[in-house]
This record gives sequence, structure tokens and C-alpha cells, in this order.
Amino acid sequence: MTTDMTRAVALARPVVAPGPRRGIGLGEMRLDGGFWGSRQETNARATLRHCYDWMERLGWLENFDRVANGETTAARPGWQFSDSEVYKLLEAVAWQLGQTPDASAEGLWADLVGRIAAAQDADGYLNTCFGHAEQADRYSDLSQGHELYCTGHLLQAAVARLRTSGEDELVRIARRAADHVCREFGADGRQGICGHPEIEVGLVEFGRATGEPAYIEQARLFVERRGRGSLAPIALLSPAYFQDDVPVRDADHWRGHAVRALYLAAGALDVATSTGDAELVRAIERQWSRSVERRTYLTGGMGSRHQDEGFGDDWELPSDRAYCETCAGVASIMVSWRLLLATGEAKYADLIERTMYNIVATSPRQDGRAFFYANPLHQREPGGDVRPDAVNPRAEGGIRAPWFDVSCCPTNVARTLASWQSCAAFVDESGEDPVVTIAQYAGGGIRVDTERGPFAVDIDTAYPEDGAVRIVVREAPAAPVGLRLRVPHWAGGAALRRDGASRPCAPGWVDVPAPLEPGDEIELQLPVEPRLTWPDPRIDGTRGTVAIERGPLVLCLESVDLPDDVPIDGVVLDVGSPLSASGDGATVRARAVPLPAHGSGRPPFTSEGEAPARGVVARGRELEVPLIPYHRWAERGPSTMRVFLPTAQNSTNPACDARRIHHHTEGTQ
Amino acid sequence: MTTDMTRAVALARPVVAPGPRRGIGLGEMRLDGGFWGSRQETNARATLRHCYDWMERLGWLENFDRVANGETTAARPGWQFSDSEVYKLLEAVAWQLGQTPDASAEGLWADLVGRIAAAQDADGYLNTCFGHAEQADRYSDLSQGHELYCTGHLLQAAVARLRTSGEDELVRIARRAADHVCREFGADGRQGICGHPEIEVGLVEFGRATGEPAYIEQARLFVERRGRGSLAPIALLSPAYFQDDVPVRDADHWRGHAVRALYLAAGALDVATSTGDAELVRAIERQWSRSVERRTYLTGGMGSRHQDEGFGDDWELPSDRAYCETCAGVASIMVSWRLLLATGEAKYADLIERTMYNIVATSPRQDGRAFFYANPLHQREPGGDVRPDAVNPRAEGGIRAPWFDVSCCPTNVARTLASWQSCAAFVDESGEDPVVTIAQYAGGGIRVDTERGPFAVDIDTAYPEDGAVRIVVREAPAAPVGLRLRVPHWAGGAALRRDGASRPCAPGWVDVPAPLEPGDEIELQLPVEPRLTWPDPRIDGTRGTVAIERGPLVLCLESVDLPDDVPIDGVVLDVGSPLSASGDGATVRARAVPLPAHGSGRPPFTSEGEAPARGVVARGRELEVPLIPYHRWAERGPSTMRVFLPTAQNSTNPACDARRIHHHTEGTQ
Repeated sequence: MTTDMTRAVALARPVVAPGPRRGIGLGEMRLDGGFWGSRQETNARATLRHCYDWMERLGWLENFDRVANGETTAARPGWQFSDSEVYKLLEAVAWQLGQTPDASAEGLWADLVGRIAAAQDADGYLNTCFGHAEQADRYSDLSQGHELYCTGHLLQAAVARLRTSGEDELVRIARRAADHVCREFGADGRQGICGHPEIEVGLVEFGRATGEPAYIEQARLFVERRGRGSLAPIALLSPAYFQDDVPVRDADHWRGHAVRALYLAAGALDVATSTGDAELVRAIERQWSRSVERRTYLTGGMGSRHQDEGFGDDWELPSDRAYCETCAGVASIMVSWRLLLATGEAKYADLIERTMYNIVATSPRQDGRAFFYANPLHQREPGGDVRPDAVNPRAEGGIRAPWFDVSCCPTNVARTLASWQSCAAFVDESGEDPVVTIAQYAGGGIRVDTERGPFAVDIDTAYPEDGAVRIVVREAPAAPVGLRLRVPHWAGGAALRRDGASRPCAPGWVDVPAPLEPGDEIELQLPVEPRLTWPDPRIDGTRGTVAIERGPLVLCLESVDLPDDVPIDGVVLDVGSPLSASGDGATVRARAVPLPAHGSGRPPFTSEGEAPARGVVARGRELEVPLIPYHRWAERGPSTMRVFLPTAQNSTNPACDARRIHHHTEGTQ
Repeated sequence: MTTDMTRAVALARPVVAPGPRRGIGLGEMRLDGGFWGSRQETNARATLRHCYDWMERLGWLENFDRVANGETTAARPGWQFSDSEVYKLLEAVAWQLGQTPDASAEGLWADLVGRIAAAQDADGYLNTCFGHAEQADRYSDLSQGHELYCTGHLLQAAVARLRTSGEDELVRIARRAADHVCREFGADGRQGICGHPEIEVGLVEFGRATGEPAYIEQARLFVERRGRGSLAPIALLSPAYFQDDVPVRDADHWRGHAVRALYLAAGALDVATSTGDAELVRAIERQWSRSVERRTYLTGGMGSRHQDEGFGDDWELPSDRAYCETCAGVASIMVSWRLLLATGEAKYADLIERTMYNIVATSPRQDGRAFFYANPLHQREPGGDVRPDAVNPRAEGGIRAPWFDVSCCPTNVARTLASWQSCAAFVDESGEDPVVTIAQYAGGGIRVDTERGPFAVDIDTAYPEDGAVRIVVREAPAAPVGLRLRVPHWAGGAALRRDGASRPCAPGWVDVPAPLEPGDEIELQLPVEPRLTWPDPRIDGTRGTVAIERGPLVLCLESVDLPDDVPIDGVVLDVGSPLSASGDGATVRARAVPLPAHGSGRPPFTSEGEAPARGVVARGRELEVPLIPYHRWAERGPSTMRVFLPTAQNSTNPACDARRIHHHTEGTQ
């Protein structure tokens, strides 16, 4: 490997957008274990092989062999989009190999790429579900066929390989596939789009990685064609399901299928930054703001509805039926990272952190061999045991399953963890001096080549359990290079210590005062004491409740931490009591309240004049209950769980009914 | 028509169960306009023809002609269950003709029956979707094919005809179809069941109406076979979706698809009462109690989930995403009526009333030509305009559509309205004297032949707008006949007046003191002043809110009744203020509260230490707002709506945050 290639590998990253901010490469940040380092290690050691084994077992890999051998039949294992899981796994393997050489992973890579290569048609078309003997014709079902979607994931895998290892067989396969798409769907070709966006984000970055502007132009065509009702309807689903209802640049918010909406936004932003389309950038910023402020869960999760895996209306954020698909979390991070590079605004890094800790980290079981697909914030019934050898047919809450019938999430988690560093920091050259900007904290070190020379720091932190982030400058060029740190929006009271002096710093970006010289020590102190977090009054699903967060972690109450006689829904928080930190969680004082007895013979509503349900007047017994990070729930067997805890017994309780509350608040105003 | 037949017609009713309670016949109760009389008239005048016209237009009727002419093809208009809509329409027409002769309706009947007869196969099989040229084989898809479901509705239509008009061609068609089912699925035949229960309820009543025990035995076999996992899975749906997870007699609650669960319960109860299976009766009673007390909305609506049109977990009763399919309301009434006959308990009549006024009456538009499919209790976004000439593809809230892609609800409403009287009263012969028992109130009259002779009353009431029900005895035999009235569970403070004296009567049944003689006047006084109704504390979706009811009517706030600058979600109820009756609704005092400004750039949750959203401290301006009956909403153009109104600004409001509330309630205990 040449020195240039070594540097290129160090710079390997999924997004290389034009503009003054460049994300750091995977080789520019070292993780020394810790929260993300340990997860990345588990991902490399367990998850990648786990995904390969399941796809081999289910015949999703053999699908490529069947095409290669001319043995396709009308029936075929896996959904029409199963090829994409193979490509997402390849992307994950490529990023991981870019960090740590591994002969076994290289063997897996070679096996997969060889089988894929053999399945590619002479003209570059590559799909195991369409276009061969006994199969439907190519592009005969753009609404549901997912052919371009699969190609998009192939291109993302090729980008990862190109940037971590250089041109190889997979990159050549991807070139042929991308060229085929441009011929087929170019300005003079089919005027179609894919029902599931993804090709756009794949084409732009592959165009950037290969220097081929035609790919970016093709992505632009796909983005511009969308929102004009060209996709054939799918029974019972509206055009908004696949964002074909409103042109991308005219939309104000995300709607329909969440992953589709977010992949489209990422791809459209890529097109916008590569073509200098400021209006399109503004459209995505607008959609982000509106959708984050009204349609996003405390965990960063997106998608309120199971029915269409989709966004709900504004303020429709029920905890129990939250869908919050893991893949939508991954896709949200993709969009926010691109917006962060495009604008430099800290709010995008805030949402990335929220989503990383509470969606991406929540999905995989500790051993990396089972995953949440849906991520509800309230589990009423225990999720049930999952057979370790069975495909889970449904994406219900409370169940981490080894594999799903639709199994998009495991490989999406894998590629995100394998490239975690790539959205942790960037070099900002928009000002006079280059500024190394740390957006996400993890123990380890960063060493970047700025235009003024190498700049390196070590980072020592037990974040997020502990809010102290100690940074020691290891290398700094003679000419000034700035260091900028993010103070998360929740971190009121943060302080920056240097040379024994401490100064408060407000949420947002904080610049470490220049000059910086090797040996300089800085400590950012982020308050990670447990805190109460209140929902917007328009959210019906969480009215009268409060959540507890700790730093970037959403906490939750899990039934296994309660006495056997206290149900999860019979706990009322004493919000006036102190919250104590406990490990990476908290301990809170609460009451176990008696719940109304049953047997009324009517729906669960009580009118004035009817006998009130019995047993609710009692204040209930005091409890100290531990809260754990949401990402750790359901690791101790089937359980029930709540993130948002009621702050008072409900209004059927005569002792704290709303009328009294009303009179009280009236009196205080 | 012979006198015997005249009497038979007078006694026409959908359920003739063994036991000491017999429901009155359609001819035994006269409706003089009023709430239900006017709806029944609109149904007869507009809805029946409306349904016929849509089915003709869409080719659902021509499907029968195609089978008759041997012209079936692989493609066919309508879903696989479209035949059932024709049969439900026939049932509605039969009940209506049993009340009022109508040459046009008779013509419609003759047209439909003739076309159906021509489509029946020689061996009695009758279905336009299976078993003919280019179609899938008979019973090749029991999970989704709906063949036995369609047959069940055919049998219900035949029951209606047999009891209102006597044996005719449709009855003969039904006999052949039922005989075919018994041959095909009997003890020695296919051991299958239908994915959608309905055949059970059809077979039992057809067996009762024809005196053929084999039909009842066949229904018993279907009930006993269920819950043993015999149905092939449908992608992403669990066996609970079609109640094939647990045997009927072992289940504790309803789950899965709500209409399926309820039709099954009705059919199982019919089997139980006809075979003297007390254990099975108890199972349905148990399921009713558990499901009503934990899984039923204030409106009587059942089914919390759009995804599978299904019940949710206990306490999962969100207002906004309430599905509450109209058909589930119809089916719930079917179950409750059967339980009322089986047990005589007033709680079943209470739920029937709740569901009649708030689901069945809510679905049809005033003109009887558009219908709600889903009946949510909160509409955040206006439902949008519906094109009067278009099939609505989706069952979303806020839209009364003339017809749906899956259009089960219009014909279900039609058959329920056409036979409304049949669940309004019954004769109870379980005691020494026969007791005429009035379960539902409507202006008109009842005249029943008891074993002691004819007993007749006139009923004068503007119920439910007015709570006075005046009853004048018109005929009474010399030997005692009792009169029993229902005091609804919400009617604390009810009184019975007779001869100038008034005595209080508690909710439940109240016996009018004997003796009763012609000319006697009784007045039941039910308090229908508006009242507050509080949700159970375990329901997250309605915590911190209250509903207002008035008699059997759930009221709601609709945006068209608010000033333009007040959004539906910015109204907070002053629960301490008086509620005033207004027409059939109410007027309440409320505040229009400023809602937090946007632009935080984060999800809609605010931690301590973060700047609180602005503008929420203000108390808001006082408003008097009118509430209307829920059944009348969305009649004045696209609108938003709420049933449950917040009782205090949410906890992000520093002026009434939960901490203060907590301190306050602590002090009062």
C-alpha cells in the first residue's frame, strides 16, 4: 500500500461533500473501548458473521448463484429486496476492514463479491429477483420491485471499498451497474423512479468517489422526478407512502414511510450540495426542523405508525405504539450528518447523538446477535421469548430477534457501527483558521491532517456515564489550528477547564481558546446528572407524564426492577423528590399506587355520579426504583417497560383529580 | 298472507335463542320518527339503493352474472369477499320489507336473488371468486379466501327473508349452500375453518329458522376447530389475527382482528345456547367483561389498531389512532344482544346503547349516502374532501366516503338500522309472570303477545336529547304482565313517576309496580345533563383529559365551532365551571391557551435547565365552546375534532407543572 493510499484509507468516510467542512476519516479517530468502541468490536467480531450466516441459511446468497447458473425459478427465497442486505453487509465489512485487517472478513468479502460478480448480467444489470428465467421483467414493478434500491446499496458498499481499499472487483461491478442505470433511466431513458429511495444517495457518493459526474446527474434526475405521482399505487397505501405526492423541494415535512422519506432526504441533500442547489438545501433543512420538532420521539426515533412504518401527523407520538424503526434511526443520522457538514449547525449533531445512544445502540443485543426492529417507548405486555434459531415474522416491540422476515435492521446497524467515527468530528475550514470540531465524544484519540499540518489529541472520558471529557493536545502545527467542542443542548451548566481555570459554556459550539500546543490539557465538564424532561402539551400520548434523561441517555423503568406486586403502570413518580445518579442510570422515588379494581362491566371510563373505582384514594406505598438506560432494556428476559412515567395518579383519583388541580393552578396565577 | 304468517312477520327478528327471554319482533315495536325512526327511514329511502348502485357500478353484482354465464376470468372486480356485501344488503332489504312494503325494494330483491340463483353451482357451492374457470380452486385458501364468510352472510340474509316473508328462492339457495357446507366440512369432511368467522353465526340461526339441527352441529364443529393453529399464516399477521391461537372456550379476552373476534364470539354463543354448553357461555361472558373493561373506547368502539384492524393490548386506547371500525361496533352489538338474552344482565344493554348512539349512528352521513369506516375520537388533521363519485381506498378517520375499496361498513350499518327494534326490548319469562322489558328507548309503541295475552304501550320521548320517557299502557291482559325498564349505568338520580308520585331508581332494571292497566301512565326520568367522564389511569392516550357525555351521547369539540385562531389542541377545559346543556349537546367554559412556539431544533420535549418554550405561562383567554354529539361531527366540511379535552395545560407550563400539582395533592392527603 502506498503512502497516498494509506492516507486515503485514513480519510475513508461515507460522505465527502463539497464545502468547507470535511468529516474525519475512519483512520483519523481511534476508539479505546468505551461505549462505542466496545460496540464496534462486538459488531466486527459477532454481527458481521451472524448476518452472513443467516443470509446463507435462508438462501438469500444462493439467489446470486441461481442467477449465475441460469437456475432461477418463479419462487425465490427472501423478499424482492433481499439483495440489499448482502450489499449492506458488504458495506459494513468494508468499513470494518478499513479499520482492522481481518483475514476471515476478507475471506467473507471475497466469497460474496465472487458470487455477486457471477450474477451480473452482461449489460451491468444486477438483481436476483427480476429479469431472468421465470422472473418478472426488469423494472416491471418500480413501485415495489426495489431494483434501484438494491443498486443504491451496492453503490454504497462500493464507495466503502473504494475509500478503504481501492478499486476492486466490487467497485467494477458497481461501475457497470451504475452505468446501466444511467443508460436505462437517463434523461432520454425511462422516466421512472424507484418506490424506495436509496439509489440517489448511492449514485451521488459513488459519483464523488469515482469522479464521474454522470452518476450525480442521474441522481439529480431521480430527485426531480419524484413527487409527481408517477409510481403505480400499492393497495391501501397513498402516494405519500413513497413521497411521490409532493416534489422534494416543495415539501415542508417528512411523511409516509419513514426510511423512504429519510433516504430520499439524504440523497436530495447530496444532489443539492454537489450541484450547488441552495433552494434544495433549504428545503431539506425546513423538512428536518418541522419533522424533528413535531414528529420525532425523545429517543430520536421517527415513525409513529406500524401500519405503513410511517410518520404520523404532527404530535402523534404515542409511546406504546411507537414504531421508531431502527433503520429510520440510521437514516435520520445520515440526513443530520449531511446537514451538519452543509451548515455547521450544532443541532444536527445533537440529534445524531440522541439517535445514536437511544436507537442505534438500543437495537443490538449485547452479544450483537439479535436486534430490535421497532423501538417503542412503552411495552405493556412482555415481548415474549424469541427462539434463537427462528426468523421473526413481525416487527413488534419488546423482541430482539436474531433475524426477521424483513431483515433490514441488522445490516443497517452493522454498517453504522462499523463507521461510527465518521460522524464524530469534522474539520471546518470556513473561517480563517482550520478548526477541528468534535461533535461526538468517545475515549480514544483524533489525529487529522489539516492544511496547516497534523493536529492530534487524546481523549479520555467515560462519557456518557461520566460527563468529564479530558482532552490532551498531542500534536499541533505552528500555525493556528482551532479546536471546537460541542456542548449538547441539554447541558446547561457545562464548563470548560483549562490551566486550573473554569469558564461556563452555553450549549452549542465552544471554541477552546487559542493557542493550542502539545501537552495542553482541556476538560469539558458536561452535567450528566439525571434530569426531568417534559413533553410538549400537544402530545396526547405523554400528557401528564415525565421522562428522565441522563446526558444523552433516555432512561426507562423496566418491570424486572420492580417488586413482583407492582405493575409497570402502577408507578407514579414523585417529581419533587431528588433524582440520584446510579451507575449509568438513576434512582427515583415513586409510589406504587393501587389501580382501580375491575368488574365494572363497562368501558374503562367513569362518570361523575357513578361509583368511583375503588382503591385509588390511597396514596400508595413509597418505592425507590432504579431507572436504566433505554438502550439496555429487554436484556434480562421478557419484561414490560416505560420511558414516560405518570406524575400523578390519573383524574379518576379523587385525591388529585383535575378539578382540584385546576383550582390550584388558578390560585397561583 | 295468513294470520299465522302475519304473526310470524311481527315476530321477525335476527336471534331466536332457546331460553326464557325472547327478543321482540320487528313488527312488535313501532318507531314514530325520532332519533332511530328517522335514521331507519333514511336507510330505507337512500342507503339501500345507494349500496345496490355502487355494487352494480363496480361489477360486484356482475360477478354473479359472469359465473352464471361461464365467463369468469382470472381477474375479477372487487375483493374476494365482495359477495358478502350483496348478502348484507339483501339482509337489510329483507328486514326493511318486513316493516314496510315497498315495490321498488321488492324489485331490487328479485333482481339480486335471480342473479345469485343463476350463479349457484349444481352442488350448492356459491361463490364468484373461487372454483370456476380461471379461478383458484374452492377452499384452496381458507385463511384469506372468505368463502365460508360469504356463505354465512347469505344465511343471515335468508334468515331475515324466512322470518319476514317466508320461504322463497333465496331461502332455497341458502339451504343448498348450507347443505353443501355440511357435506364439505362435516365431521368426516375437511377439518378446516374460515379465516374470517361468520359462517358460525349464519349456520346457527339458519338452523333455528329452518329447524335443521345439522346446521347447528356444523357451526359447533367450526367453533371447536378454531384456535388450534390450522389456518395458514398470512404474511406479517399472527394466528391471533384470526383467533386461531387459543380455543374459543379457553380464551380470556378478544384479540386480533376485531370484527373476526366479535363475529366468532356471537357465533360461539349461539352454539352454546343451542347446545346447552354453559361453559362456552361463561367463556364468552368472561371475554366480554375483560375486553369491555380494558379494550373498549368510550364510544363503545373496539379495535385500537389500524395495522390489523385489531384490538390492542389492555389499556391501549389512543384517541387519535382509534380504529373503531364501524363493523366492529355492529358485531359488538350482536354479541351483547345475545348475552343479554342469555343472561338478562342490564350491562349488555348499556353497551348496546353506547355503541348504537356513538358508532352505528356516527357512521352514516345524515343523507345516508356516505359512511365512516374508522371512528377515531381525535382528528388532528382535517379529513379532507371526498369525491362523491370515487371509491375511497383507505379507512382513515375524518372521512365519510360513499364507498370504500373494502366496503363492509355501509351494508353492515344498513342491516343494523333496518332491524333496530330487534334489540330494543324482550319478553322475559324466567319468573312467575312474563315481563316486558324495554332495553332501548325510542318514541313509538310496543305491542307484544305474551303468554297471558297482548300487552301494549305507547312511548313518548325525545330521548336522548330529553331524558323523560313517558309510557302509557294501552292494552294489558287480566293476568299480570310485568313491565321492566332499564336505567342506564350513567343515570344516577333517575326517578320513576307514577300517579304523581316519584321514586328514585338505581341503575339497572327497574320494575314498574304492578298492576298495570290500560290508561296507566308512567314516566321514567333519566338525567341527561352533561357530565364529566374520566378515563382509567392506565390509559396513556387520555391521561390528563376528560370527556363530556350527555345521556348515552358522547360529545365532542369540533374545530368549526372554534374561533379561527384557536386550534383544537389549544383548548383546555375549565372543569370546575358548570356544564350547560345546549340542544342535544353542551356548552362548556374553556381557555384557549397559547401553545409553545417552534424553532427549538430538537424533538418536542424540554428538559429542566433548558429554556422553556415561550408563551405557555399565560393563562389564555376564556372561551365558551359548544360541544356537539360525536355522531354529528364532520357533517360541516373538513374539520378537526376531540372527544377528550385536556384539563390543564401540560407540564411544560411552569404555572401548572406536575411538581406543583404533586406538592398540592400531597398537602391535601
